[in-house]
Amino acid sequence: MKPVVAVYGNVWPDAELSALGAEFDIHVMAGMTALETAGFFDQHAGRVRGLLTTGTVGIDAATAARFPKLEIVAVHAVGLDAVDLPALGARGIVVTSTPDVLTEDVADLALALLLSAARRLPQLDRYVRAGHWLEKRPLQPTRSLRGKVAGIYGYGRIGQAVASRLRAFGMEIRYFQRSAGPQPALRCASLAALARESDYLLVCTPGGPDTRHAVDAAVLDALGPQGTLV
Amino acid sequence: MKPVVAVYGNVWPDAELSALGAEFDIHVMAGMTALETAGFFDQHAGRVRGLLTTGTVGIDAATAARFPKLEIVAVHAVGLDAVDLPALGARGIVVTSTPDVLTEDVADLALALLLSAARRLPQLDRYVRAGHWLEKRPLQPTRSLRGKVAGIYGYGRIGQAVASRLRAFGMEIRYFQRSAGPQPALRCASLAALARESDYLLVCTPGGPDTRHAVDAAVLDALGPQGTLV
Repeated sequence: MKPVVAVYGNVWPDAELSALGAEFDIHVMAGMTALETAGFFDQHAGRVRGLLTTGTVGIDAATAARFPKLEIVAVHAVGLDAVDLPALGARGIVVTSTPDVLTEDVADLALALLLSAARRLPQLDRYVRAGHWLEKRPLQPTRSLRGKVAGIYGYGRIGQAVASRLRAFGMEIRYFQRSAGPQPALRCASLAALARESDYLLVCTPGGPDTRHAVDAAVLDALGPQGTLV
Repeated sequence: MKPVVAVYGNVWPDAELSALGAEFDIHVMAGMTALETAGFFDQHAGRVRGLLTTGTVGIDAATAARFPKLEIVAVHAVGLDAVDLPALGARGIVVTSTPDVLTEDVADLALALLLSAARRLPQLDRYVRAGHWLEKRPLQPTRSLRGKVAGIYGYGRIGQAVASRLRAFGMEIRYFQRSAGPQPALRCASLAALARESDYLLVCTPGGPDTRHAVDAAVLDALGPQGTLV
């Protein structure tokens, strides 16, 4: 008999779920109605040994308690802030994450957001769809990146992958994190000091209580009215 | 008396126009009503010695003919396809453009468009504004860039500036242009062959009759249903 796995959260294409279904008896909870969910908990949750979830959805202690035979929670993300690690740890449940798999993709997305803000792409997308290009309605020039300062808050794997991309755009890099990091000459003394020097401030830290509210009003003031936060 | 300059097209911020106004007697044509435009042609066009325009608006022979004293057309762009060069040349009018100034910005925009397509940013912008994130409505994963092939049609200054950025994202570069170019090992035999090898096809050629309709149905077929054209 195949081990029973609950699929919690829902980002996987059908092909991935089919592949998983070949090895495991899977139950995709995201697709269930409220009644089906209740039925699932009554009939199957007691046999669930593995649970697959995303970084956003995670799993809390109360939900985990509904799976008495749970042995492993596989999180499809780097961040575990939505996963109740103490509760799972107390039960000896293994938690896995995907720390390196997504580094490049997260860095790509950071650049996509930065370029999109600098070049006002969502606004231009709406401009085109509304037909304003036919009227040749004037557009204001957008902002250059070359020579601008990108401040990276959290210079770990993702922060450094972001930096290597930003350098290709001719941007200057500064960073802040508690430890010195790999290029101490580029490190600022505080997050506020980093924000003050930066045209663009990119947050590349883990989530959770240690960094919650780190980017506060003082940091945004230091970044200034022309600054951009990614 | 300050030389008279007509500002044709309209992308310049007020600060730039003020600076220009300090040196020249400027007439901003984009802001004029039809009646004002007619008045301008009657009263001032005969004294205009310089004309400032954009790459999109350019200037055609008929309009240029309305300025009998025209000496110089300054085009704020790389591309001159909207400027009637033969007509202006026959009258000895100097045409200037901004070939290097915009290279980095055009390359930035190419990357912004590519990332925006790969990561579906305009769609995600609408998703957020419509409040779907509150409902945790599922999102499908988007596409990675690492290891994908970027085909660059036109490997000149802009094409090469685009390539150096794409490499920072881990993309492989191929190109096509008529001449061998700086890295013949990366050159494909034809535009269709380039499209066939590419996941992303980026057009970095000049406009105008030489390249008009170069990207035709056969090229799009070669790029394929999963391909992206920038």
